[in-house]
Amino acid sequence: MIGHEIHSLARRLWSIDRSITGDGVRETLGIIKDILPSLEIHEIPSGTQVYDWTVPREWKVLDAFIIDPTGKKICDFQKNNLHLVGYSTPVNARMSLAELQEHLYSLPEQPTAIPYITSYYKERWGFCISQQERDALIDGEYKVVVDSELFNGSLTYGELLIKGKSQREVFLSTYVCHPSMANNELSGPTVATFLADWLTRQKGKRFSYRFVFIPETIGSIAYLSRNLGVIKPRVFAGFNISCVGDDRDYSYLPSRTGDTLSDRVAKHILSHIYPDFKSYRWTHRGSDERQYCAPGIDLPIASIMRTKYGMYPEYHTSLDDLENVVTPEGLEGGYTALYRALEAIEHNIYPRVNVLCEPQLGKRGLYPTLSTKSSGNEVRCMMNLISYSDGTKSLLEIAELCECPVWELYPLVEKLTEHHVLILSDDPQVMS
Amino acid sequence: MIGHEIHSLARRLWSIDRSITGDGVRETLGIIKDILPSLEIHEIPSGTQVYDWTVPREWKVLDAFIIDPTGKKICDFQKNNLHLVGYSTPVNARMSLAELQEHLYSLPEQPTAIPYITSYYKERWGFCISQQERDALIDGEYKVVVDSELFNGSLTYGELLIKGKSQREVFLSTYVCHPSMANNELSGPTVATFLADWLTRQKGKRFSYRFVFIPETIGSIAYLSRNLGVIKPRVFAGFNISCVGDDRDYSYLPSRTGDTLSDRVAKHILSHIYPDFKSYRWTHRGSDERQYCAPGIDLPIASIMRTKYGMYPEYHTSLDDLENVVTPEGLEGGYTALYRALEAIEHNIYPRVNVLCEPQLGKRGLYPTLSTKSSGNEVRCMMNLISYSDGTKSLLEIAELCECPVWELYPLVEKLTEHHVLILSDDPQVMS
Amino acid sequence: MIGHEIHSLARRLWSIDRSITGDGVRETLGIIKDILPSLEIHEIPSGTQVYDWTVPREWKVLDAFIIDPTGKKICDFQKNNLHLVGYSTPVNARMSLAELQEHLYSLPEQPTAIPYITSYYKERWGFCISQQERDALIDGEYKVVVDSELFNGSLTYGELLIKGKSQREVFLSTYVCHPSMANNELSGPTVATFLADWLTRQKGKRFSYRFVFIPETIGSIAYLSRNLGVIKPRVFAGFNISCVGDDRDYSYLPSRTGDTLSDRVAKHILSHIYPDFKSYRWTHRGSDERQYCAPGIDLPIASIMRTKYGMYPEYHTSLDDLENVVTPEGLEGGYTALYRALEAIEHNIYPRVNVLCEPQLGKRGLYPTLSTKSSGNEVRCMMNLISYSDGTKSLLEIAELCECPVWELYPLVEKLTEHHVLILSDDPQVMS
Repeated sequence: MIGHEIHSLARRLWSIDRSITGDGVRETLGIIKDILPSLEIHEIPSGTQVYDWTVPREWKVLDAFIIDPTGKKICDFQKNNLHLVGYSTPVNARMSLAELQEHLYSLPEQPTAIPYITSYYKERWGFCISQQERDALIDGEYKVVVDSELFNGSLTYGELLIKGKSQREVFLSTYVCHPSMANNELSGPTVATFLADWLTRQKGKRFSYRFVFIPETIGSIAYLSRNLGVIKPRVFAGFNISCVGDDRDYSYLPSRTGDTLSDRVAKHILSHIYPDFKSYRWTHRGSDERQYCAPGIDLPIASIMRTKYGMYPEYHTSLDDLENVVTPEGLEGGYTALYRALEAIEHNIYPRVNVLCEPQLGKRGLYPTLSTKSSGNEVRCMMNLISYSDGTKSLLEIAELCECPVWELYPLVEKLTEHHVLILSDDPQVMS
Repeated sequence: MIGHEIHSLARRLWSIDRSITGDGVRETLGIIKDILPSLEIHEIPSGTQVYDWTVPREWKVLDAFIIDPTGKKICDFQKNNLHLVGYSTPVNARMSLAELQEHLYSLPEQPTAIPYITSYYKERWGFCISQQERDALIDGEYKVVVDSELFNGSLTYGELLIKGKSQREVFLSTYVCHPSMANNELSGPTVATFLADWLTRQKGKRFSYRFVFIPETIGSIAYLSRNLGVIKPRVFAGFNISCVGDDRDYSYLPSRTGDTLSDRVAKHILSHIYPDFKSYRWTHRGSDERQYCAPGIDLPIASIMRTKYGMYPEYHTSLDDLENVVTPEGLEGGYTALYRALEAIEHNIYPRVNVLCEPQLGKRGLYPTLSTKSSGNEVRCMMNLISYSDGTKSLLEIAELCECPVWELYPLVEKLTEHHVLILSDDPQVMS
Repeated sequence: MIGHEIHSLARRLWSIDRSITGDGVRETLGIIKDILPSLEIHEIPSGTQVYDWTVPREWKVLDAFIIDPTGKKICDFQKNNLHLVGYSTPVNARMSLAELQEHLYSLPEQPTAIPYITSYYKERWGFCISQQERDALIDGEYKVVVDSELFNGSLTYGELLIKGKSQREVFLSTYVCHPSMANNELSGPTVATFLADWLTRQKGKRFSYRFVFIPETIGSIAYLSRNLGVIKPRVFAGFNISCVGDDRDYSYLPSRTGDTLSDRVAKHILSHIYPDFKSYRWTHRGSDERQYCAPGIDLPIASIMRTKYGMYPEYHTSLDDLENVVTPEGLEGGYTALYRALEAIEHNIYPRVNVLCEPQLGKRGLYPTLSTKSSGNEVRCMMNLISYSDGTKSLLEIAELCECPVWELYPLVEKLTEHHVLILSDDPQVMS
């Protein structure tokens, strides 16, 4: 089961100190490159203007911890990198509990969880701690150490183009900036890695597939500011890959317009995999589709997810782990939904029947020779496919009209094409 | 009541040996021609290529029966022509019960019914028998006689064009290939006959009406292969007439696109005759609309039915009879729904009000002179008709907007036209 | 509270003898002109042809009453002008109760109510009386006096154009022909007066606003026959103002097409003020939208109402009063809904975001600097506004997409425009 392989990769990446910049991202991309050797690693220098934003300084943490009045080390970054507020500035000081409290973050309603907090664009320092541990802190003098650096370095991302027959591309994006959390977000880069690996091995693909592994928000903005001119005319579909690892739900979040091929594919696949999937609105967005679908960017990027960010209790806390939240089964489900979606895009041809009136399937051995009360049902699906194959409908539209999963039509299309009953054309909007 | 007249015709046609070819079809069409003298009979020779199909050899049955070990004649074609599998090849042989069983067809779940089975395109012979009778067969030697012929003859169909002012046509098709069954299908040709008779007697029709009485599938394919060039530019609406004789339900089956005038008329009429009518989808089709609406043929043919083929227990068995299933009331209902539909097409003009603002109906004697709390209701329907008469809406659309049966508007249109309040135009899409 | 001011004006206008012509209309318009000094009063002579209609003779009532057999004065027009059937011809006669009964109108199911009855286009006379009083009439001789005149005079209406930067206009119409009734119709002209007063005091309006105070039906027809050429190219939105004074319900009645800006604004405003508002269909119409939206006139006029005419028991009777039916609260609600609607039209710009990808709001002080689990919610509304600001959507459409009242977006638009994040354009369909 591929879910186990994906889960193993996630375990391997678990404890790396990731943020929107820094060696943690580089180490993560290095491990992914072991599986995807063609992955290209790019660096964008700190201070680079990227649309309305500026690439921040690189952040490096050597160590971070607090020594409590009894001499015990708490909030130890070495043990859990969520303890340190992302992009904390250096500090080495002694202070009272009252002073320290102003730099502590915890979740009263989730007393065992360490929250995930960042402050990328305002200089401050802070520690994240479980409410339970915080409540047990005693008065006295605390020693606080954040041995971090903020320096002019660069922002790192990975990119992989898997070429097919056409230059038209499907765009897949996932992010590599989150520290030790599982569904949001080790599930995205690990599932994306295995999707890319699968696509690399497919022969005769109609389309090209571009994967980017980036830090969220600043990464997608930086990427777009460099590459929009190249990808805009090529990309006709794509997905943001996030939260694809737990086994509780399936979710769809639309592109901004909600009517792209990506949207239609996502809804079709999910409705046949899990009819009760959650359908969100654009106003519920929260990941890099915010950039990909922004006015003027307008890429056709939708999201297929398991349980959506913000919609499960462990979200953005230390409870979002690889034991209780993300499982091999969950990852397998996320992988399969995306695999089915990419496959549907590959197979989305426009079939046209090659004869007027119904073809006589009997003489081709494709129809029962005896007409009985129920014989019609056996070949109904094939007859419906033929009937809708008027050259104006994509296979996806035909599957919707037939109320069947599009993947059930692939073998029928193949058989009818072999028998010269159907002729296949490209989607005129994709292949114009 | 016209239902009784239709039922009488059905009784007269009942026992004729019909199949997709042969003298049974000719005899049936001959009787219909007694009522519709202008009906033209056409023959298409066996072996003629018709699109993807070939007109089969003609089938003639002189006799067919089985003699059981006790000397009793069973499965006697003379008594019920359903006993013989359609297009059975000749046989004259003695065999054991075990051998015979392989040629018998029955319905375990309907033990008293003789099923209706055909094998047009593969040579075989067989008998249809009730499960009850089959279970009582004893071991021993059986004599089997099928005195049939398959020879190069022709396929026969009837066609009637009833001319109106315009060459634009409404196309009505029904089939004459089914042996002794009532709803499917003596109801279709008998109701069609009386609709054609009614239309023949109407003076000043706007449109022409073309009726075809054909064998199902091969008949419509053969007809289209000969006549598509003539009828395609003329036909703007039409119905396949099948299963219009029982008194249990009303049903609508769309054209392939589902949005033609025929579809709109059918849904409107049925919603006002029987609001609980069944609305099927194109994937539930099963009659000649499969050919008329095939890609590239694309005629606007919908179906108005009573209980649809395949949806009643007696379907395609000897239980589909003129006593328990098809009744004068059932036929009357089917006739009326189709009559209302054809009438709605005839009346589907585009009215336009002849003045700006509301016309003063009072001075024309069309409006109460006293304005009281409730006086508005009395003429509300007329005012709504006027208000929607902007020249862009057909009478059918106006009836939908007014939420009333279109036939309630006919006298109002007439009165307002007489008073020069409304001007009527043809449907620009029909009369272009 | 402005509701009290509106209610006071309604009290002042209450007992004036209004009809579709005459001094009552002139007196009413004179009082409104005290508040709106720029109101222009127009007269159209009796006998003028206005489209399909003719301006009727002017009707003047000096006195009207009945003396019963005991000498008691009943149905006294001086006490309640509803007692006299509108446009009653003069009479001065003695008659039996039986003769009199043929000229009396009452409502058996509302025994205390005097009905409102008119006979503008057929000469007759009559009195309206409560069922209770009618039942108590005794046999004997009655003296009947209607001291009225029908003479060649004129039809009077008021018009006020409040100019904004653009010549494109919002059209507001209300009617001044109803005698002593409150919701239908002193609420309309009084609310309209205060809306006009408010608009007059607004600086920098984008659009012009045209108010007409007319008699119903003949007034709007006469007005249109004179002014359609002027207003047709200017008016892009508007409302008929009627039944805006009781505090029971909110109602929307569409324009004839149902898809104008006025319709969209009305539904948006009402859905956020009172989600259970009644949404009527065009077939439920009954006021001057019948003329404004007639074929060929086609002005975009919808109605925002409290409880719609015909839908409350006191409608068109003496029970429709300023005590139990129309209240300051009711008028305030009607005023506010219309005020919100006009404001929404004024603010209905097309915003476009000024950068590619999301703007960095943090550097502008518009975004929290700390990213926590819930920080996204606080600025979600602003981010949604920005995300939909692609230059193709009006602010109203954006509010619908954001599922928030459009008025909550006004301060955000202002702030984001100040920070050069948004650029605003006019509605291209309005400002073409």
